[in-house]
Order: sequence, then structure tokens, then C-alpha cells
Amino acid sequence: MVTTNARKLYNAVKAEAVLTERTDLRQYLTGVSTSFGYVLTDAEKSIFYTDARYLEACHSLLDGSEIEVKKYEGPIENLLKGYKEVAVPLSSTSYPDYKKLSDAGLKIVDSGKAFDSLMSIKQDYEIENIKAACQITDRAFKDLLPRIKEGMTENEVAAELEYLMRKSGASGTSFPTIVGFGKNSSVPHHETGNTKLQFGNVILIDYGCKVNGYCSDCTRTFLFGDDGKHTNFKAAYEHVLTAHMLVKAKATDGMTGKEIDAIARDYLKGFNLDGYFTHSLGHGLGINIHEFPFISPKGADVIRNGMVFSDEPGVYFEGDFGIRIEDTVMLKDGKVISLTDSNKKLIIL
Amino acid sequence: MVTTNARKLYNAVKAEAVLTERTDLRQYLTGVSTSFGYVLTDAEKSIFYTDARYLEACHSLLDGSEIEVKKYEGPIENLLKGYKEVAVPLSSTSYPDYKKLSDAGLKIVDSGKAFDSLMSIKQDYEIENIKAACQITDRAFKDLLPRIKEGMTENEVAAELEYLMRKSGASGTSFPTIVGFGKNSSVPHHETGNTKLQFGNVILIDYGCKVNGYCSDCTRTFLFGDDGKHTNFKAAYEHVLTAHMLVKAKATDGMTGKEIDAIARDYLKGFNLDGYFTHSLGHGLGINIHEFPFISPKGADVIRNGMVFSDEPGVYFEGDFGIRIEDTVMLKDGKVISLTDSNKKLIIL
Repeated sequence: MVTTNARKLYNAVKAEAVLTERTDLRQYLTGVSTSFGYVLTDAEKSIFYTDARYLEACHSLLDGSEIEVKKYEGPIENLLKGYKEVAVPLSSTSYPDYKKLSDAGLKIVDSGKAFDSLMSIKQDYEIENIKAACQITDRAFKDLLPRIKEGMTENEVAAELEYLMRKSGASGTSFPTIVGFGKNSSVPHHETGNTKLQFGNVILIDYGCKVNGYCSDCTRTFLFGDDGKHTNFKAAYEHVLTAHMLVKAKATDGMTGKEIDAIARDYLKGFNLDGYFTHSLGHGLGINIHEFPFISPKGADVIRNGMVFSDEPGVYFEGDFGIRIEDTVMLKDGKVISLTDSNKKLIIL
Repeated sequence: MVTTNARKLYNAVKAEAVLTERTDLRQYLTGVSTSFGYVLTDAEKSIFYTDARYLEACHSLLDGSEIEVKKYEGPIENLLKGYKEVAVPLSSTSYPDYKKLSDAGLKIVDSGKAFDSLMSIKQDYEIENIKAACQITDRAFKDLLPRIKEGMTENEVAAELEYLMRKSGASGTSFPTIVGFGKNSSVPHHETGNTKLQFGNVILIDYGCKVNGYCSDCTRTFLFGDDGKHTNFKAAYEHVLTAHMLVKAKATDGMTGKEIDAIARDYLKGFNLDGYFTHSLGHGLGINIHEFPFISPKGADVIRNGMVFSDEPGVYFEGDFGIRIEDTVMLKDGKVISLTDSNKKLIIL
């Protein structure tokens, strides 16, 4: 997919030149995944400077696009000769890089906010990739369920799930798969390990995959058999699911992250569960698994049509159990659309 | 594994306080994998400041260690009140973070070189983890070979390989698996795709996994059947293999990266193949798949006993075929030991 994102970025930043090195931002501008390079855009043109490893592929992929490909010869100051001003994503520009540009007499401005705005409103080709990743994610969950057997380890379940996604065309996971059995489900960022599955265990699975460089993100919590000890779990599950669905029903264009987070948090408060909801409601995703906007109790980011984000309320009872229900969603015409959408009614295997 | 690395780092840096945020460095100091936190070490103590998601796990994992765990309350300047000097890894400290510390009146020194030196000499527990990853890597290759069938896509072969590693206890891949069929093998960083395997194809597989946060890295090139058109390939294969083995025979403690790279490059030059060896010979690996030291034609880094690195000469004939043969190796008592070591004699499936 050859993009026109470099020109869009230039128009948004309003600096004499825009220089981009960061891997994810470089991928956004070029549409190509590389581990080294700089994109330099000015009023006239965009040039992607990269090394021998990528020249051949990039020449062919970017032929006829807005981006010219050249071999990087460095140092970086040389590329910027003749300019008085350059925009870089400040929060991820290292101090030594900043100093080099500054010592070369360049006025430095920030491209970070322009990237956030531009990247958060997904274009059709981006939505297609995210949808493809979400469809693989949903199917893998469905295909995983009959493979789950007593005595399997968390790692073995993760291996099966990742294999199913990979075989369906995902290029890999979008983050390390979390599988938590029993009380491990109560640790929001549990490290998947060798705990064995026992009858009656809660199973929490937080996972996602990548398609053409774009991520999906999904969490399901369910039971491996019912040992009759799950009264509290079942009650809490229904509340978390209602909180999750309320966000889908009520979130709309123009609300802040804080307001959307409050839809779930306020509902859970009515059942004294808000104290167990120890993280944010959600986050934007796209090329990165976590990116602008953020949907949290402090979130000032405004949610707009075209944004893709996670809706993931959860409650965690330390040493006992945890529940998280998460879909990747997008906002379109003021309504939430679920991009992952596998069964969320409580499953008892 | 609870480390004493924070104290070692402090002793090496010689600054009043040492502040570390970067994910891989934080993992090195704490022995725990987290996505947020700061380690602050002074003459008296080390404190790991992290957020609610990790507090419970870190309190338990670091109990009795040199590191105290506290909830991060921020801003970062507050943690540093009372200090006049702080060391940070400069090349990966963002300009805004640098400015915050500088504006707070702190003298800023660089901890980067101390991290490089310390992390490059692997300790016993690190070697054990890398060896475990390498053993899984080797076994997966052996188990993969009988599964490779005509008509499979590159992605399907990658999926099988990753599944085999994951089932054997790897937590995931150490980088996106590269599988290249036919002329795709001539692109050193080919993006694994949906090309189908045909009789007579060259297959290049560059892959690795992680165990307890430590990486392996291995490349094998072989033939899927012999269609009688591989005379040049077979001759080049033997030369690349000899270059690879010469490095193992001759590299020793005290040589620079440049000198070790030249062992392979000079040998290939004797057969006019050096012009097709378009990348460096190798790189250090550990928590990161690429880290200090670097073994390249410009490499000034000195290779020492205890270092773990890749030995990966390769030649690439654009549009035709490529060959790369890579093992993860370590230097011990002046000798190279292969940590990955699956069959390197030319395989014809």
C-alpha cells in the first residue's frame, strides 16, 4: 500500500522540512516495514533515505509514489543543509540527535501532535488491515476452544492460539499473548507460564495478531468447567460485560477519553466494583498496539469518527480471579462498531 | 532470577545517582519484564518505581533482593530531589526527558557505555537462558524439515517453525521469522509472504526464540529438491560455510569486530564473493536481538570472553538466490563455542 501520508503530514506540521526516523512513524509514511531509515519531506518532495538492505525492495514498492528512495550516506546534518527549520517527533527524539540538529543551526519544532492526529483517524486501507487482523483473531478463539484440555499449560494454550492465527495469515502476534489460569487471571499483566489447567479454573486470554503491519487486540474470560464455586465470578462477569456493552452503546464522536472511561467505571461503581477496575478502559491501536488516543480516567484526548480503540473493562480480585472483556472497536458515524466480536456470553467449557 | 546488576552498574558508572527507564535495561537491572518503571540507584540503595499493574508481582519477585519496590508517583524530577548528578543512557534519553532533568538543576552523565560493557559479558544465568533458547531453536529446525512440503507458503513454514519453538517452551520469537523461497532468499531482510514452495527452490530461514527474556538467532539455507540448476549455488554454499567455520576457528579474545569480520570477508574475497556479502558478519545478542558488540567492517568494539554474538556470513545474488549461514556463538577461554549448532552441511530435501 503506497500512501500519501508524508504529504499529509507535511501539510499538518507547517515546518520548512519534516524529518522522521522512528520505526512506526516511518512505516506510516512509507507503507513499508524497515529497520533503518529517514523520511525527509519539504514543500517540493519526500525522500526516503535507507540502507543497502532495503534499497531494492523500496525502489520497487515505492516506484511511482510520492516518495523517492535514496541510499543514506549520512551524517543526518548533511541531509538538512539549506534548511533553517526541521520538525521531528520531539518526545521520541533522543537528546544527542536533538543536539546534532540544534548545533547545525536548525530551529526544531515538534511533529508529534500532527502524527497523533493523522494516525488516529484510520483510512480505508488501514481499517481493512485491522479488520483482517480482527477476523483472524475471532476465528482463532473459536478454533481454540475445542483444543483446550485439562493439564495443558498456559504456554501450550498460547502456542495453539498463536499457531491458529499464524496459519490464517497473521504475520505474528501484536504483543506477547497473555494466558492466565485460575488466580493468575487476577494479575492484569500476568506473564504466561507453565501453570497447568485444572477443572473449574477461570481462563483469561488477552491476545492479538498483525496483518500488513496492523494490530488487533481482544480479551476473553471463561470457565474450564463449573465446580460450583463461581457465584461471585459469575455475578462480576455479568457486570463487566454490561460495562463493556454500555461503552459500545453510549460512546460517540466528540466525547473525551475520560467521559468514555466513566461510562464503564460509573456503572461498576454502582456495584462497588470500581475499586477492582485498576486500569484504563482502553487505548488507540493501529500500527502500534498502544497509540493515541488514550481512554482513561484522566484522558483529555477527544474521540472522533474513524478512530480505532479497545473497550476493555476488567475487575481483579488479588489471589482469587480476574475478569477482562475486550474488543477492538471503531467509531463510525457516531456509533461504535465491534471489529473483534467473538462470543462474550459466559462460556463454560 | 534476582540480579545484583543495579549495584554493578552503579559501581561502573561512578555518578551520584543512576536512573534507568529503558525497557531492556530495566529488565537487566530488575530481572523482571515490565512495560513501565524507573530504577534509581545511589550509593545506599536501589529502588524500582513502577505502577499498580506490576507492584504485586515485583514485590514478590524482588523480596530479599538488592532492589526495593515502590509505587511510582512522579513526576520524575521529584524522585531526584537532593541529588546534584544523575546518570542516564544518553543515546536513548529523549530530549524532553533530558530537559526536565537539566531544568531541575541536575548534572547529567551517560550510563550507556557502562551498560554496554556490563551487559555484553554474559553471566552464568544469562548463558543458561540463551543456551535454552538455542537448544529449542536447533530442535525446531530438525523437527521442521519433515514437515516442509511442496506448495506450502513461506508464512505456513514460518507458522510451523514458530509453533514448534513455542510448544518446546519458548515465550515467542526473538524477531519476525524470515522464510524466503527461491529468489526471495536473495533479499537479506525479505518479508515472509505467501510465495509457494516449488521443487528445486532454495529455502532460507532466519529465526530465533526467547526463553526467560533472552534471545537466540540462527539462519539455515538449503534446497527443496535438486533440479540440477544449482551448480553456482552449491559452490557459493561451500564458500559461505567455510567463511562461517573460519570465524569459529580463528576469532579470539581481544580481537576487534573489524578483525573478526575480516576473517570471513577476506576469505570470500579470494573467490570474488566479498562484493555479494552486503552486511556485517555479526552482532551481540542477549536481552536484545541486536546489542553491543557489533562485528562489522568498521567495528571498533573489542570482543571478549563471555560475549555472545552471531556469526552470519552471507552472499546475495539479486533476483537469483541468497545464502546465509548463522549460529549464535559465545567466546569462552579464547575459543568460539556454538550455541546453535544444527546441521550445516548442505541439506537437499
